[in-house]
Amino acid sequence: MNRKMEECIRENMDEIIVRWQARMKEGKGERFFLFMSTELIESTSREFAELMTSNIKKSEIIDAEQLNDFTEKVVRFGWSIKFVNKAIDSFSRVAYEIMDEHGVLSELEARTSILTFDEWISPLRESIIEAYAIEWERTVSIQKTAL
Amino acid sequence: MNRKMEECIRENMDEIIVRWQARMKEGKGERFFLFMSTELIESTSREFAELMTSNIKKSEIIDAEQLNDFTEKVVRFGWSIKFVNKAIDSFSRVAYEIMDEHGVLSELEARTSILTFDEWISPLRESIIEAYAIEWERTVSIQKTAL
Repeated sequence: MNRKMEECIRENMDEIIVRWQARMKEGKGERFFLFMSTELIESTSREFAELMTSNIKKSEIIDAEQLNDFTEKVVRFGWSIKFVNKAIDSFSRVAYEIMDEHGVLSELEARTSILTFDEWISPLRESIIEAYAIEWERTVSIQKTAL
Repeated sequence: MNRKMEECIRENMDEIIVRWQARMKEGKGERFFLFMSTELIESTSREFAELMTSNIKKSEIIDAEQLNDFTEKVVRFGWSIKFVNKAIDSFSRVAYEIMDEHGVLSELEARTSILTFDEWISPLRESIIEAYAIEWERTVSIQKTAL
């Protein structure tokens, strides 16, 4: 990711989180937030945002420990994989909007920016979906043993 | 999706499938294809491509029966959700490249095209991930009953 895009995301992180939470409360997925206290929503949102920006400098490198902590938590909260995927989509869209509003994406560079953006989001989505599936399988297997 | 983009995808479907298969055989995911006969790879690729283009006219509307048939099949083939996600990413990237090569995405319209593209892929990914998770859970539960 180029320096301008990176700075824009870091400087506007609070706004990104506020808008992201608003999107996540819309529609059917909302029930996953309903079971969580305001404090828990706040800390989980912050943790998710940190995970989503952990590879902002070097794409393809995601902190394994941070990733596992997060997925373990959301599987325990009962977030579905669809909801996790929606979280990634919404975060990515809000970040794109904010960059657009701050003039970071000029019309001429639009296509290059999109590719940079894709290089940021795709490996994250891949790692999160994989970690979620592993964690989910582990949880099901523990529950099976307990039966 | 605009008519130009739609036509370009339909006219180049064979080329899209060939390139998509090549990408899917790269890297670690390859083992999922190893267990399948050439004929099975061909028919599954064609079915996946049909599913990916089923909502090309009206986004957000995906044929439920087609979706369920496909996910039931790939869960049975042992495709992981990570591999399914990679299939969606690769298909979307190849389609984008083909459109670019055919001059369908002009530099000036790049940003609008990207949004149209996102409106096409996001609901598909959401539906496929959800259907996969439901099918996977059903399979695990059948296996549990059989124990």
